[in-house]
Amino acid sequence: MADQVIGRIPVLECLRAKKRTARKLFLLRDAKGLEVLREAAGRVPIEECSRAELDEMANGATHQGVILEADPLRLVSLDDWLNWPVSQDAVVVILDGVEDPHNFGAIVRSAAACGASAVLFGKDRSAPISPASMKSAAGAMEYIDLIEVTNLVRAVEAMKKAGFWIAALDADAEQVLWDCDLQGRIGLVIGSEGKGVRRLMGKHCDFHLRIPLTGPITSLNASVSAAIALAECLRQRR
Amino acid sequence: MADQVIGRIPVLECLRAKKRTARKLFLLRDAKGLEVLREAAGRVPIEECSRAELDEMANGATHQGVILEADPLRLVSLDDWLNWPVSQDAVVVILDGVEDPHNFGAIVRSAAACGASAVLFGKDRSAPISPASMKSAAGAMEYIDLIEVTNLVRAVEAMKKAGFWIAALDADAEQVLWDCDLQGRIGLVIGSEGKGVRRLMGKHCDFHLRIPLTGPITSLNASVSAAIALAECLRQRR
Repeated sequence: MADQVIGRIPVLECLRAKKRTARKLFLLRDAKGLEVLREAAGRVPIEECSRAELDEMANGATHQGVILEADPLRLVSLDDWLNWPVSQDAVVVILDGVEDPHNFGAIVRSAAACGASAVLFGKDRSAPISPASMKSAAGAMEYIDLIEVTNLVRAVEAMKKAGFWIAALDADAEQVLWDCDLQGRIGLVIGSEGKGVRRLMGKHCDFHLRIPLTGPITSLNASVSAAIALAECLRQRR
Repeated sequence: MADQVIGRIPVLECLRAKKRTARKLFLLRDAKGLEVLREAAGRVPIEECSRAELDEMANGATHQGVILEADPLRLVSLDDWLNWPVSQDAVVVILDGVEDPHNFGAIVRSAAACGASAVLFGKDRSAPISPASMKSAAGAMEYIDLIEVTNLVRAVEAMKKAGFWIAALDADAEQVLWDCDLQGRIGLVIGSEGKGVRRLMGKHCDFHLRIPLTGPITSLNASVSAAIALAECLRQRR
């Protein structure tokens, strides 16, 4: 089975990251600005296509003249991941019900940019790896570890045993994000925009942290909350 | 001339904010979960419509069974705004080429949530107020001041005369965001994702600040960068 990577940035980062085998690169005939992609492709076979052919392959997604056929993105189990060398300072983003592909992709991008080690999510959720989420991730899915688990609560307990402190973002929490020591191994739990972190999940978290908003709008986009918390981890790790 | 506000959250916040006159509320006949909107509507006339009628009115935008006809959003000139009572601690987000409607809307939302006073943008840019940007703003456009100017550089100079320090986010800057004193009146300049803050604009800024990313992905989404800087303003103002 092969995956399709669609669009210039996702394809470029997939070729650069070299984490999975690229099989064939499809490029729009006579398109401009593709030199960097041809170069990154190295020995990967290139096929020139018409716009209609690419449109059909992309099945509605915006391809910008570029589609790559590659091995599927490798998802890792938590057990395996915890057996890899994990930094004493690792940050893992734990998604509890974030199902919007744009938010999912945006969080993966921020996590990779802020030096987080992995993004963890439940298997039961609708497939988070899609052209839409890969576009929002701007190539970041090629670099960060993607951990898929069957049961989020069990995963959190396993992480705690491995020395992670679990911090949930929660608009109703008493403790303010910036007052919490976020050094060491941290799991950051991000809930869905409407419902927040689920109650059962919340009970298993060590900290509940809020971003102390002061404006007339009382909630942030889930990917924005995640980024603010990831930036705080970064700030405390300098 | 009237505006259309489309979708449940934008309409609800427009009715609640009461900053502009709502003229008529169009609701999908027999739709569920609209009680809160009926209540917020107060004396605004309500017309029950079919899905086809709403689809036609929305012209492709996702309406969720709800469209409001209202006075247009009021944009304010910088001169007028600076004559209003402006807090000594005011934060104004200055958009330098952020044209993507989702980013524009997302930044307005984060600005309103983080207690910023206004979002300022150039007139020459493609109209930033659209159903797409209003959806991403999740109602925040009804609350925050929207300042439209003809010339961004002149606007920045006028703000400096009014006691604002102007800080540009810039991935190549030497100074780190968290090392800069962001108290007092601050103008935060956010550039476009591809090009960053324009050179001429950059020359007029007092500070150039970077978010010290450590990961394999070296750039953040423009709305995410803006949110991290807005959160830092919030943190320093506690």
